[in-house]
Amino acid sequence: MTLRFIVVFLCGISALLVSGQPSLILTEKGLNEIRNQLGKAPLFDASLEKVRAQIDAEIARPIDVPVPVDLAGGYTHQQHKANFFNLQKAGVLFQITGEEKYAQYVRDVLMAYKELYPQLDRHPAERSYARGKFFWQCLNDANWLVYVSQAYDCIYDWLPAKERKALNKELFRPYADFLSVETPQFFNRIHNHSTWGNAAVGMIGLVMDDEELVQRALYGAREASVTGPAQDNDGGQILDKDQKMGFLAQVDEAFSPDGYYTEGPYYQRYAMYPFLIFAQALANNKPELGILNYRNGLLIKAVYALVNQTNAQGEFFPINDAQKGMSLLSRELVFGVSMAYHYGGNDPELLSIIEKQGRVPLNDAGMAAAKGITEGKTQPYTFKSIELTDGAAGDEGAIGIIRADNLTLLMKYAKHGMGHGHFDRLGFLLYDAHGEVIQDYGAARWVNIEHKDGGGYLKENHSWAKQTLAHNTLVVDKDSHFDGKVKAADQVAGTPYYFLPGDDVQIVSAKETNAYKDVAMHRTMAVVRVPELENPLVIDLFAVQAPEGTRYDLPLYYLGEFMSSNQDFETNDTLTPMGAHDGYQHLWQEAQAIAKGKVFRFTWFNKRNFFTMHSAVREGDELLLTRIGAYDPNFNLRRDPGLIHRRTSGNTLFASLYELHGSYDYTTERPLNLFTAIADFRVLHESADYVAVQFELKNGNRYVFAFSLTDDDESSRHQLQIENKNLEWTGIYNFYKTDNE
Amino acid sequence: MTLRFIVVFLCGISALLVSGQPSLILTEKGLNEIRNQLGKAPLFDASLEKVRAQIDAEIARPIDVPVPVDLAGGYTHQQHKANFFNLQKAGVLFQITGEEKYAQYVRDVLMAYKELYPQLDRHPAERSYARGKFFWQCLNDANWLVYVSQAYDCIYDWLPAKERKALNKELFRPYADFLSVETPQFFNRIHNHSTWGNAAVGMIGLVMDDEELVQRALYGAREASVTGPAQDNDGGQILDKDQKMGFLAQVDEAFSPDGYYTEGPYYQRYAMYPFLIFAQALANNKPELGILNYRNGLLIKAVYALVNQTNAQGEFFPINDAQKGMSLLSRELVFGVSMAYHYGGNDPELLSIIEKQGRVPLNDAGMAAAKGITEGKTQPYTFKSIELTDGAAGDEGAIGIIRADNLTLLMKYAKHGMGHGHFDRLGFLLYDAHGEVIQDYGAARWVNIEHKDGGGYLKENHSWAKQTLAHNTLVVDKDSHFDGKVKAADQVAGTPYYFLPGDDVQIVSAKETNAYKDVAMHRTMAVVRVPELENPLVIDLFAVQAPEGTRYDLPLYYLGEFMSSNQDFETNDTLTPMGAHDGYQHLWQEAQAIAKGKVFRFTWFNKRNFFTMHSAVREGDELLLTRIGAYDPNFNLRRDPGLIHRRTSGNTLFASLYELHGSYDYTTERPLNLFTAIADFRVLHESADYVAVQFELKNGNRYVFAFSLTDDDESSRHQLQIENKNLEWTGIYNFYKTDNE
Repeated sequence: MTLRFIVVFLCGISALLVSGQPSLILTEKGLNEIRNQLGKAPLFDASLEKVRAQIDAEIARPIDVPVPVDLAGGYTHQQHKANFFNLQKAGVLFQITGEEKYAQYVRDVLMAYKELYPQLDRHPAERSYARGKFFWQCLNDANWLVYVSQAYDCIYDWLPAKERKALNKELFRPYADFLSVETPQFFNRIHNHSTWGNAAVGMIGLVMDDEELVQRALYGAREASVTGPAQDNDGGQILDKDQKMGFLAQVDEAFSPDGYYTEGPYYQRYAMYPFLIFAQALANNKPELGILNYRNGLLIKAVYALVNQTNAQGEFFPINDAQKGMSLLSRELVFGVSMAYHYGGNDPELLSIIEKQGRVPLNDAGMAAAKGITEGKTQPYTFKSIELTDGAAGDEGAIGIIRADNLTLLMKYAKHGMGHGHFDRLGFLLYDAHGEVIQDYGAARWVNIEHKDGGGYLKENHSWAKQTLAHNTLVVDKDSHFDGKVKAADQVAGTPYYFLPGDDVQIVSAKETNAYKDVAMHRTMAVVRVPELENPLVIDLFAVQAPEGTRYDLPLYYLGEFMSSNQDFETNDTLTPMGAHDGYQHLWQEAQAIAKGKVFRFTWFNKRNFFTMHSAVREGDELLLTRIGAYDPNFNLRRDPGLIHRRTSGNTLFASLYELHGSYDYTTERPLNLFTAIADFRVLHESADYVAVQFELKNGNRYVFAFSLTDDDESSRHQLQIENKNLEWTGIYNFYKTDNE
Repeated sequence: MTLRFIVVFLCGISALLVSGQPSLILTEKGLNEIRNQLGKAPLFDASLEKVRAQIDAEIARPIDVPVPVDLAGGYTHQQHKANFFNLQKAGVLFQITGEEKYAQYVRDVLMAYKELYPQLDRHPAERSYARGKFFWQCLNDANWLVYVSQAYDCIYDWLPAKERKALNKELFRPYADFLSVETPQFFNRIHNHSTWGNAAVGMIGLVMDDEELVQRALYGAREASVTGPAQDNDGGQILDKDQKMGFLAQVDEAFSPDGYYTEGPYYQRYAMYPFLIFAQALANNKPELGILNYRNGLLIKAVYALVNQTNAQGEFFPINDAQKGMSLLSRELVFGVSMAYHYGGNDPELLSIIEKQGRVPLNDAGMAAAKGITEGKTQPYTFKSIELTDGAAGDEGAIGIIRADNLTLLMKYAKHGMGHGHFDRLGFLLYDAHGEVIQDYGAARWVNIEHKDGGGYLKENHSWAKQTLAHNTLVVDKDSHFDGKVKAADQVAGTPYYFLPGDDVQIVSAKETNAYKDVAMHRTMAVVRVPELENPLVIDLFAVQAPEGTRYDLPLYYLGEFMSSNQDFETNDTLTPMGAHDGYQHLWQEAQAIAKGKVFRFTWFNKRNFFTMHSAVREGDELLLTRIGAYDPNFNLRRDPGLIHRRTSGNTLFASLYELHGSYDYTTERPLNLFTAIADFRVLHESADYVAVQFELKNGNRYVFAFSLTDDDESSRHQLQIENKNLEWTGIYNFYKTDNE
């Protein structure tokens, strides 16, 4: 098969004219390399064969360029979307194989668009702040142009000059104007939508050698912008003529110096593609810009930031608005990771990600990656503990990711994330090798699934998924952080306090003092390894300074089935919603217990493993077992379980220990270590300045973790009186095994 | 590595004495073949290496033969269980590798048991009807002896005569007597427990050349049995001296002629091992019995029956008491499938199952299978539509399994299945390529997981899982089939009416007239392929003859998320249990609708696909959306959704159509065919004699399915007047596309 394949290529290539184009993404040099390596790099060959089979099938069908009518998910929307993906692929196939049928297909479809375009006003659906032409929103039209520019570039020199001229004049230039000067509320913002717009206009400008469009892409449609601040109806800000705008401003503003994107990885994945594809086009055509070195190689760093924000299955952490399941297998990352490999110094660890993706993009980068894999250069990707700062200058909060063996912990103390942010300061997520252990709900949305309100955000996304109660963080007086107001939340970020990546002791610690009036929250999570246990432990110390009489609810969304507890839960025979707002209206209270003793133990099972939480409790603490699903008229919410630790107090400390233990196999039916190995857990000290906890293993060994809440100087000396013993240490924390008496 | 490996073997083998033993499972001839093929059949080599690594680690630890105290799941139970698995493996390793350390390990552990045995009375826990010695029940002791006999056989000739004699006299013979003549309520029954007992006693008899024990195994401990019927405290029947008992009687009684076991595949998997292992020992030592040809090769047939009772993941259908997840990967099937390959005619399709198992047993059969795979003989296993009869004579009901493309349908109209049976006559399960679509709850049990009532059956197994309401079949007047009484249910089976395996039309149809007084139920399910659709459709016609005013509840346990419906469901802000007994006490009613129009459409999404149910509705019909979980004080039940179609009527027909359509991918976020392709579904005719339904596709094509309920003669002529047209056909059913007017 491979042989026949190569022969076809060799015959076809003679049909190509050597000239200045393609130059956008594919280049003459790159194409020569690709053609030379065909048949030698199996991953590239397989990727090519798959695309070829798909486009061959597509070409056999009649061309379909319908008059736009539908919203996302509807027929005309899906068809135009399919068209732009197919065109891009057909263009590439033409260049790689030289077979003219692909070029003819691209031309024919483009001609149909050229005929359709002048007949169209803005899309009939009026839902968007910036209605498009082929789609209901300009965002999708910009997607179209980003992909179609690449297709057009691939046949540009092949087309007769007359047809090229007609397409330039009657379709592409007017369309680029439409997306920019005619729609400044879309084009002139610092926003992922605008990034697509900038890239689209810039890329078609490069293809047509239209420098005016390229400048507009890089620096904004200044001629169309307003004077003074103006709000569009999406809540965004149309930029002032005097402000920075355009693609370079987006690169400056969208990412932190660590490559973190404030909306979180789900949106970053989507937003990255126009950044990367336009950057590659600029690198090929305007090397003087040095775009790939811009901000210390920020765009490549952003690809790494995405790779680092995944679980063991390669799925992105679903913080903020995010549909779970989106992963490194997405087409954006298939493009991005190979690009980062090729342009970012041939990091062999990226090849292991690319192997898991199972395909490469059909371009220079894809061939380089496939070649690297064939040559056996692959090394496993090392997922390190890492803190990713937020904010353009890196000084507006962060997320902390701790990796230890099979365990991954994420704590969030970043910016709010604009319209897609959730009210979840100091919230955390916990994973093991099999997936979620303590979950973030993600977004209440079924992307593109029309049954569910056309595939858009559901109203439960606001009423549940964004609320603080839906997250593993503290709810004060039944109210969400920042009173659930985006504007207030957007103005301040969490405050990183301490981050220690490392080996046997790793720590993430951050403060949030703005989410509630008169309430200062400080969460410290330590992941510690002790030699007696099979897995690391997670110590969770949530310290709060607040007035007496404050009501705290600390939810925990464990995933799996409740196994046993040392507390006596009483289940309810009638379920009613737990409240009327801030998410409480969506929770059923299935059971409750008034805490007894000093510690609350709760064991659950998920997939193949057991987990036990140990929490220090006080007299009067309540423990509630909850279920999501109340006030859900359209069954938009998953019926997931939760656990709320409720306390009324002033200054206080919620201290917990999360223990991953044991396993169960459904075919041997043999459980291992199904009980906790921890005999006791308690708070030794709590004050405004320090917290200290101790856990005792069943074998009698005791460990103490002490932490300074106010002095983050590594060289400070600390002293605590604990149970008649003097504990002294240097630095922010101390973790040690006690002498057993 | 492989080379080094072989050298070790060759050196070791010289240490073996050639003699009469082993002969139980391993034989001299088989061992020669195994040794010759080492290094040539990778799957065998890998299986051997894995076992060797495990046992080498085990041998390094101190021997641990504790005084028995614990119930299942507890420490002493798990340790004795680990011991017998390890002994069997060590014995085999000694024979294959010739390394004496393995024989020494077996001897040392056996000697420890020999010391312990005389000190023991029956196990201190008093929960079992037949308390064991090393375990709380004789069943586990018989497991021990089945495995340990094999280990003992492997070192029998290697042991000094004195030690052998001591073990025979002080451990094995007394132990065999204990399990048989001293515990007739365990040994002399027709029951899977007794099969283990029979095999254990027979196998140690073969090893020790103790013909008395072998005869006892084959024909029962007649000397110890009772006269006249006697009940043990497990609800079983101790056999009368004059009745058939022992291993051969078990083979006669336990399976139907199709190899189906009345308790269902979960228990069949467990029960099969003693049948197969003792049969193999008998084939080696008493060829004159012709055990593998007994009842037309029934034991091999039973392995095929198990393979045929699995979904696309190789997991057994969880009918009756069954923990989900048990699969062809279990050790019993690893043994059984290779044995069926080797002794059942080298069926190359079984090799594909063995490849998925990823390991082979370390015996002749395992080597034969590994060799077959190495030689490239593997062919994919063809899962055919099949009806498996129940009852020793094959005349007591059946289960019908229909396979069509990726779809698997199971309908159950078998015997009750004794103490592990569920009240689910005419219930069904539906699977696609990704797993369950319409589920059976399975058992309410976490096998061996001590958190959950010691790992035994939970009380919700009786109050929920066994009840008719927990299944996809008809509940009449809020009462379970047979009023929930096992004895009544055990006396009568369902009645097969028609089974048609085939191509574009496949049918399973059966009756149940005993489950409720004065109610005759007849369910017919047809799986039909029509060229317009991507997947086959399932037509479900549940006809009931009953007095006026009967209240019917027909539940459907779809798995996944509710997408949309054409009915207006009203959700409830307060949830209360739906009833007080028969399972209703465990259901919350989340929403309800009074049916409008002629058809109820309900679309859900699961994993990667969409599903739509179309049901004909009548005025007054109610549709209820339910959730499992009420009155569940220990959180023993899964919060799974359900749907109940409620109707009060006399004779009636519940007619539904299940449609599998479309797909969704979380990384492309692109849904395909997310809406039904069916425009209409309705009943054309219903009477005591016939049912006929019609569905209309969105393209206008109509299909009719007509079925004779009372005449199952293939040659009969039928005539129906349908909407002023005369429909005539020959045979039991007619499925056709109508002429569009």
